[in-house]
Amino acid sequence: MIATVVGLGLIGGSFALSLKEKGICERVTGIERSEKSALKALELGLVDAIVTMDEALEQSDLIVLATPVDTIPVMATKYLNQIRPNQILMDMGSTKQELCEITMLHPNRGRLVATHPMWGTENSGPEAAEHNAFTGRTVVICEREKTDSDALHVVEEIYRTLGMPIRYMSAEDQDTHCAYVSHISHITSFALALTVLEKEREEEHIFDLAGGGFESTVRLAKSLPQTWAPIFLGNKYNVLDVLREHIHQLQILRRMIERDDREGLVEAMQKANKIRDILK
Amino acid sequence: MIATVVGLGLIGGSFALSLKEKGICERVTGIERSEKSALKALELGLVDAIVTMDEALEQSDLIVLATPVDTIPVMATKYLNQIRPNQILMDMGSTKQELCEITMLHPNRGRLVATHPMWGTENSGPEAAEHNAFTGRTVVICEREKTDSDALHVVEEIYRTLGMPIRYMSAEDQDTHCAYVSHISHITSFALALTVLEKEREEEHIFDLAGGGFESTVRLAKSLPQTWAPIFLGNKYNVLDVLREHIHQLQILRRMIERDDREGLVEAMQKANKIRDILK
Repeated sequence: MIATVVGLGLIGGSFALSLKEKGICERVTGIERSEKSALKALELGLVDAIVTMDEALEQSDLIVLATPVDTIPVMATKYLNQIRPNQILMDMGSTKQELCEITMLHPNRGRLVATHPMWGTENSGPEAAEHNAFTGRTVVICEREKTDSDALHVVEEIYRTLGMPIRYMSAEDQDTHCAYVSHISHITSFALALTVLEKEREEEHIFDLAGGGFESTVRLAKSLPQTWAPIFLGNKYNVLDVLREHIHQLQILRRMIERDDREGLVEAMQKANKIRDILK
Repeated sequence: MIATVVGLGLIGGSFALSLKEKGICERVTGIERSEKSALKALELGLVDAIVTMDEALEQSDLIVLATPVDTIPVMATKYLNQIRPNQILMDMGSTKQELCEITMLHPNRGRLVATHPMWGTENSGPEAAEHNAFTGRTVVICEREKTDSDALHVVEEIYRTLGMPIRYMSAEDQDTHCAYVSHISHITSFALALTVLEKEREEEHIFDLAGGGFESTVRLAKSLPQTWAPIFLGNKYNVLDVLREHIHQLQILRRMIERDDREGLVEAMQKANKIRDILK
């Protein structure tokens, strides 16, 4: 199989690596807007060559969209406009409602497999690409019923080869769930970094005193704004819903601390402790 | 040297292990309120024996307080009341103002070394004790000037043997800084867990979809309420101050998302990205 990955950053770069290293594709080419990133991806061996959209549509069995989520719906439509019946288009974006809505009535909708592999790090660019990046993580496939069975089968086999359990859900459910288990974590982490940077002017102390706890909660604040702004805005209503609840929970804890309500605090934290069983 | 560690949980248990494994003490005994934890600590070899307060004061060169922070000031005073001029008392609590205030005019204040090693995990109890727990982490020593130089020297040497850089500061500064780099991370994490548990009833999805990002921001929500409620209340004014700023930052991000202010979001996140340089 020959694949082209569009967008050779953290996700696309890691996926290109996996396609080659797991023996899924004999040739992986790339499309990358930034010349610097394209050269870096070649240098790192993430892809065998950089191609154009026309070349990709001519040569590739599989085209993978791994660009910021706000660019995916339009780009997917352009590829679907020209795709041949034996070619497959897939995307790896973190939100799905917009993509599924835009492509809903496209005559070639069946060639698109809408996926969201639940993996990422706070790093970005081709140099952030990792070997064995996706293994063990869940991947969501949306609107299975609108996807041609041969295209679905190929993509399922790729994810299975990477060792990823597959979950099927509607685009709506996927965006709701991801607001809770991914997007809010990033917002919280960005806000935490801003809080500390705002208040703690003596940077030396942040550096010295920050234990492992701080580093892990603030890690995601290193993530790429150009990736995450479109995700937050693309999943706006879900994200705002969770954010409202999160601020509410912080205010409850704040009021308990203000009132020296030790019993209430312990009770709330015991409830929060249940996350241990769920994540186990 | 013979040491007694009071409180054989995560911190005390790990410290007891280090004292033995690094060859600092030939004998380490423990005091533990919970019989179950005492037996577990013995079984795990964290301490050589369980002793009483009287036995500790009779036999030990060094007594280490590693109990919840709200119990430390009173307990420290009781030990200082009976301590001999050649014995050393130290504590490992996460807040320091209350302890330093309570012991301020005690005639034996000089025997107390007030320390806060910046290490911990979300686990608790003797079974959470880790080998080489503190290595590479910073330790804060407060009110060096009120501590007898021989006592200070012994404790400094212990921390140096564990490979911990030492920072000296006032109790006030330590509590302020720790509100920013440790306590707020825990509150955020607890609130995040509560948010997700509140909103996401289908626990299966949390389990399946939670990527590494969610797990790292929510990890601290597994922490022991009995440890953290006293820390939040003991450092109330600093914690409330940071919490107010954190909620404010979340509200700013929320408003940007509401208004589709992509530029503002990117700018705020770029500012947050600076945490990368600081933590590097």
